[in-house]
Amino acid sequence: MDMSGSFWLRCTLCRSEYEATPTTYTCSRCGDAGILEVEYDYDYARTRLGRDSLAANPEWNMWRYLPLLPVHPASGRPNLRVGGTPLYRADRYARAVGLEEVWVKDDGLNPTGSLKDRASALGVVKAMEAGASAVACSSTGNAGSSLAGNAAAAGLPSYVFVPDRAPKGKLAQLLLFGARVVAVKGSYEDAFRLSMEAIRRWGWYNRNAALNPYLVEGKKTVALEIAEQLGWRVPDWVVVSVGDGCTIAGVGKGFFDLHDCGLTDRVPRLLGVQAQGCAPIYRAFQAGGEEWVPEPEETLADSIAVGVPRNPIKALRAVRRSGGEMVAVSDEEILEAMRLLASSAGVFAEPAAAAAFAGLARARREGIVAAGEVVVGIVTGNGLKDVANALRAAGEPIHIPPDLGELERALAGGGIRGCGGE
Amino acid sequence: MDMSGSFWLRCTLCRSEYEATPTTYTCSRCGDAGILEVEYDYDYARTRLGRDSLAANPEWNMWRYLPLLPVHPASGRPNLRVGGTPLYRADRYARAVGLEEVWVKDDGLNPTGSLKDRASALGVVKAMEAGASAVACSSTGNAGSSLAGNAAAAGLPSYVFVPDRAPKGKLAQLLLFGARVVAVKGSYEDAFRLSMEAIRRWGWYNRNAALNPYLVEGKKTVALEIAEQLGWRVPDWVVVSVGDGCTIAGVGKGFFDLHDCGLTDRVPRLLGVQAQGCAPIYRAFQAGGEEWVPEPEETLADSIAVGVPRNPIKALRAVRRSGGEMVAVSDEEILEAMRLLASSAGVFAEPAAAAAFAGLARARREGIVAAGEVVVGIVTGNGLKDVANALRAAGEPIHIPPDLGELERALAGGGIRGCGGE
Repeated sequence: MDMSGSFWLRCTLCRSEYEATPTTYTCSRCGDAGILEVEYDYDYARTRLGRDSLAANPEWNMWRYLPLLPVHPASGRPNLRVGGTPLYRADRYARAVGLEEVWVKDDGLNPTGSLKDRASALGVVKAMEAGASAVACSSTGNAGSSLAGNAAAAGLPSYVFVPDRAPKGKLAQLLLFGARVVAVKGSYEDAFRLSMEAIRRWGWYNRNAALNPYLVEGKKTVALEIAEQLGWRVPDWVVVSVGDGCTIAGVGKGFFDLHDCGLTDRVPRLLGVQAQGCAPIYRAFQAGGEEWVPEPEETLADSIAVGVPRNPIKALRAVRRSGGEMVAVSDEEILEAMRLLASSAGVFAEPAAAAAFAGLARARREGIVAAGEVVVGIVTGNGLKDVANALRAAGEPIHIPPDLGELERALAGGGIRGCGGE
Repeated sequence: MDMSGSFWLRCTLCRSEYEATPTTYTCSRCGDAGILEVEYDYDYARTRLGRDSLAANPEWNMWRYLPLLPVHPASGRPNLRVGGTPLYRADRYARAVGLEEVWVKDDGLNPTGSLKDRASALGVVKAMEAGASAVACSSTGNAGSSLAGNAAAAGLPSYVFVPDRAPKGKLAQLLLFGARVVAVKGSYEDAFRLSMEAIRRWGWYNRNAALNPYLVEGKKTVALEIAEQLGWRVPDWVVVSVGDGCTIAGVGKGFFDLHDCGLTDRVPRLLGVQAQGCAPIYRAFQAGGEEWVPEPEETLADSIAVGVPRNPIKALRAVRRSGGEMVAVSDEEILEAMRLLASSAGVFAEPAAAAAFAGLARARREGIVAAGEVVVGIVTGNGLKDVANALRAAGEPIHIPPDLGELERALAGGGIRGCGGE
């Protein structure tokens, strides 16, 4: 099938347009600052992606939205089910934070446990289209392990650059997937810079979300799924945590694309949430401009601890264009959100993912979100990714010898909640 | 809808039949040894569950098989997507172990990360049908965390009894889900005994798979999905690891039920795999009888480290009735299987789940499984559940300062595989 003309690239700064070859990463006029965005022929996409054709498509994963993805239909794909994650209505959670209707999109159930699988799957397809010998990225964890898993499932070698503070769980996963892991003594920024040099030196495919214009198109599929799962009813708010800025930009792109295709009649407001200990994009948003200042990375939510974000502009524009807001939350609020989401809805989120829900609770308290508004929160990563912090949130079990009398005394003593009268 | 008569209970020892009330756990004539099994009116089920009606059902989770499940259609369910996990064809993995066609059923993508979600979801439904104030079980980990998650998603309190050696990751998860966790100083057997006493004392619903006859019906849905995902082509072998014996019994029950319903024309042979460090069921199988001897629990595959299995008879009968086999594998073989599955197929399995694949490799080497036979292996738990052992399997990354020259030297020195000429 000839797809030429159905998608192309445009510079977000100078508006120059480019043919969408797999290795066109940035604008040749503006340099690395000239982030490219994928544009589609929406009239054409509209003929190939309708509510009825989707309803008749039994394939429940990110590729069901192929007419709105920048890949060629015949290209190979990693053999994993990426996307197609569940959306739960969470009434007990909603009541606890003073809302009537909250939905939880559990993207922690992606194959390697995070939303990043959507970007990595797309990156691996582009690497295969490019005929690359390997694919590489820098990552605080989830982007790396998702790349490693998707590359393994496609039979493609991968190189992952991580700052050496990354949690053990994330390293274990990507090492097992067979990635060549380079732990860089330094910050996320140092790991990123070295990955860029190595990619240039050895000609690997570049899966750094900050520059590669295709990855955000993978991330946007979470928005397409949310809209479809809600029966094309657009929520008032979609809440997502913000690190590098790429994920919220992807979520925004998805809702704008849906609107441009005529599948929905409006876009939701985006609520972007950063951790107070590392909130450069939040502070730029509050200041009203696009200027931002690097910050130290002082939060337990390591997946969004990005002091030098690569995509603040795309994130800020997405939030503002949606009429959205940003908030920042403390680590204590994040731990409380982990507990509340798990115990009220049965969804176990990693700290960076729980941050979105901490931000929702805060936005509700501050009156940003009204009680009657419909909200979707995205769980961007599985809680099993970061067990050390889960334990900080969870506390300890009671330890007793195997004796009913001992248990009875522990229960009576309040060592276990809520079972006095049972 | 009147479901009376469509399912009932029968003692596996004396064949007495019982009405299927939610709290009928064991045979009143045979006592605790009288394990009950759910029987269906297969002629009736056949009218309600056909290949065509399934193909037209867009609900992709375990409840799509309702006519073969012992629950009332109107009963409440935990609001989680349990089941509906992907089945991948794994050609690179197959070649590596000398087979032509291997499929990987990734049940680690269930909501709390293990196949046990299928049993726990069913248990929670039965607890709600019984009007119980809480639900309880003992567990080495996955049964407990899945119970905690499913109970949380249904708004039902849960009590989980664990031996205090259970890995931190599993405890974190169930504590966060709001379960009341009792860490028993002793063995799995001690935790089990105390849970039974407490269940009797406080009248909680009993989700111990060893006695509760309904849970295995939840587990069997993995078999129903495999058959449907293969287009009703029955594989030659289905491989699953064995601890308590309940999971393989459930897998067997699923394939026999499908056959009794006329949905398939034969059943696959079951390959049951235990860890050499704790293999009482394997040894009973090799001895040709149903007698077994308690064993110490000396394997890193903690989810199948069950020295005093509660359901060896059901497991042995399921394997033998299918014309199957059992093998036992070392911890080293398990770690190697974790590496191979992750790096060749992109699937990250916990040690107990990888044990199945270690067993498959061994069965192939020993000629039990022939090169041309079609095999499905079940990943019963997510690798993120047990990061410590994943790291043992994975090794360490290379640590370098952020400098391309240092990276080049590390690559040239073989610190990273396979990139000399790239």
